[in-house]
Amino acid sequence: MDENYMKLALELAKNGMGKVNPNPMVGAIIVKNGKVIGEGYHEAFGKAHAEVNAFNSLIEDAAGATIYVTLEPCSHYGKTPPCVDKIIENKISRVIVGAFDPNPVVSGKGVKKLRDVGIEVITGVLEDECTKINEVFMKYIVSKKPFVILKSAMSLDGKIATSKGESKWITGEKSRVEVHKLRNEVSAIMVGVNTIINDNPQLTCRLENGRNPIRIVVDSTLRIPIESKVISDIDEAKTIIATTDKGSSDKILELTNTGVTVLIIKSKNGRVDLQELMIKLGNLNIDSILLEGGGILNFSALDQGIVDKIQIYISPKIIGGEKSKTPVGGNGIEILKDAFKIQGLTSRSVGEDILIEGYIKKG
Amino acid sequence: MDENYMKLALELAKNGMGKVNPNPMVGAIIVKNGKVIGEGYHEAFGKAHAEVNAFNSLIEDAAGATIYVTLEPCSHYGKTPPCVDKIIENKISRVIVGAFDPNPVVSGKGVKKLRDVGIEVITGVLEDECTKINEVFMKYIVSKKPFVILKSAMSLDGKIATSKGESKWITGEKSRVEVHKLRNEVSAIMVGVNTIINDNPQLTCRLENGRNPIRIVVDSTLRIPIESKVISDIDEAKTIIATTDKGSSDKILELTNTGVTVLIIKSKNGRVDLQELMIKLGNLNIDSILLEGGGILNFSALDQGIVDKIQIYISPKIIGGEKSKTPVGGNGIEILKDAFKIQGLTSRSVGEDILIEGYIKKG
Repeated sequence: MDENYMKLALELAKNGMGKVNPNPMVGAIIVKNGKVIGEGYHEAFGKAHAEVNAFNSLIEDAAGATIYVTLEPCSHYGKTPPCVDKIIENKISRVIVGAFDPNPVVSGKGVKKLRDVGIEVITGVLEDECTKINEVFMKYIVSKKPFVILKSAMSLDGKIATSKGESKWITGEKSRVEVHKLRNEVSAIMVGVNTIINDNPQLTCRLENGRNPIRIVVDSTLRIPIESKVISDIDEAKTIIATTDKGSSDKILELTNTGVTVLIIKSKNGRVDLQELMIKLGNLNIDSILLEGGGILNFSALDQGIVDKIQIYISPKIIGGEKSKTPVGGNGIEILKDAFKIQGLTSRSVGEDILIEGYIKKG
Repeated sequence: MDENYMKLALELAKNGMGKVNPNPMVGAIIVKNGKVIGEGYHEAFGKAHAEVNAFNSLIEDAAGATIYVTLEPCSHYGKTPPCVDKIIENKISRVIVGAFDPNPVVSGKGVKKLRDVGIEVITGVLEDECTKINEVFMKYIVSKKPFVILKSAMSLDGKIATSKGESKWITGEKSRVEVHKLRNEVSAIMVGVNTIINDNPQLTCRLENGRNPIRIVVDSTLRIPIESKVISDIDEAKTIIATTDKGSSDKILELTNTGVTVLIIKSKNGRVDLQELMIKLGNLNIDSILLEGGGILNFSALDQGIVDKIQIYISPKIIGGEKSKTPVGGNGIEILKDAFKIQGLTSRSVGEDILIEGYIKKG
């Protein structure tokens, strides 16, 4: 029963997708005598919390009712007053919580405050699902660094291009639409300068009414051609170029004159220090990054520990070739026990392709 | 209803796994007034067909009953008399057939003969499943060439070893047990000589009461070390070495003296012509081969069109490395439209790994 209402609350929460960042998506349902008497979700960044919207939608008095919330209600004054006060005020008798709020100013305190006034609180209902919809928020709120999703598309034998470099398109139409949906949801998309030089992509979201993510190009020595699409169509979407002190100041000037942002990051082995870059991007309110790098950048990203999630689209093709590129290149690991481990591996069909995804195990 | 009984017949059929080759696995169930009154399966090569075993198990008279058979009943005298005669004799009134028999001396004729005497015949019930359990037979009976399954185990980024060559073990325990089950079912296992030189594997089936497949080593110039396990433990399992006229006659003599069979095959671009090898192996009653090759042999096998099915175990690890080996190497294809296409792609979890399998699209 509790799970069914929580599922409804989860569905409501998802309506906030792409609109609440870097806030979490949250849904709330108020139930009395087996009837839903109020519901709401967090609709936009800085706007009312889900609980408040649910109380505002009440069709009858909430005294004695149960509220289902996908995320622990807040107990502090942020952009809005604390939701726990609203819950107490409305004489709610049971609070069912999905996930704990990792935000240090909330975590556990909301639940405690409710219990302190004698309200029954049940936590952890559909906790995994409630946590997963806010995986970006869960990382960003505690680390102030973006949640990074490494995405690649390969043949069943692990190639991202033929031996002659042809890569359009390895995967099918449906997979490509899914990627554009993800571009519509993340704050930024990140590639290496080689991708810009070889493919000159626009890196925008091609969905109708889609929202373009910020484009980030990792370019340690500023080799990016000034006529690249990510520069020439700067009116379409913001572009950030991350370089080191090896980027010439003339090129920096030339680039900034086009409206591009150039970030000078300390270098690590002669390349952009990606951990440092993540801190800088987090400070710019970038909470999520879709990494669509080539093999070299992908390996560096894994090696420097900035990747949180991995998504590999596998197409029903075999390409072969000792020299054909693969999704993760670079030096690679030498000993199997040093391999990057993935947890929560799942697979599902996407059109003719199969998507495998999981989370990088840390530490 | 018909599907439920056919499922039972399918389960029965599978009892013949590994014992009936190169015959097909077949199951039969006789049902009268909603009660199963007889059942049987093809138990061993050359022994009674499933239908005959079902009739022999009858607990009451079969007149007016329905028989469910996973494969079209035979109408010719082979090692046993025709099953359709037995069906007519027993006054069966309905015959439900799963898959048609591709064997040219049977195909369609069994069904026709039954219909000619006025028996109702329904075909194609669970046809896909009934065909799939005999995929080996379906190929071998018409082509006299073995059904080849290319199997590999790789990391999520498509590597079969680290940059330093470590490959034990990429995948988990459960995947490895599945592979040993498959070794227990196929007629032969095939590798390239490099695998023998680098890993010196035994290539036997490690299951309790397991049956060892014949070991086939593709070795165009007879580089195989005479002390290799596949030669020294020849009492464990047969070994066939496929070479070209470049193999020295001294080495051939040395090898045959150990009990190994050496096949001299015509060469194609200086290497063993794999199509020719398949014809020779088919003549030796080898109906199925598990190809556990390295990247070079796997590419040749695909390129020469001998692969029927592909199984890739994907482990929750990322290895990286521009120079790390991948499941299919060689020259690879140059243009994407020339990629080998796979149909019927499916994925499922095997312990911590994911198995993706499908069939190579021909022509």
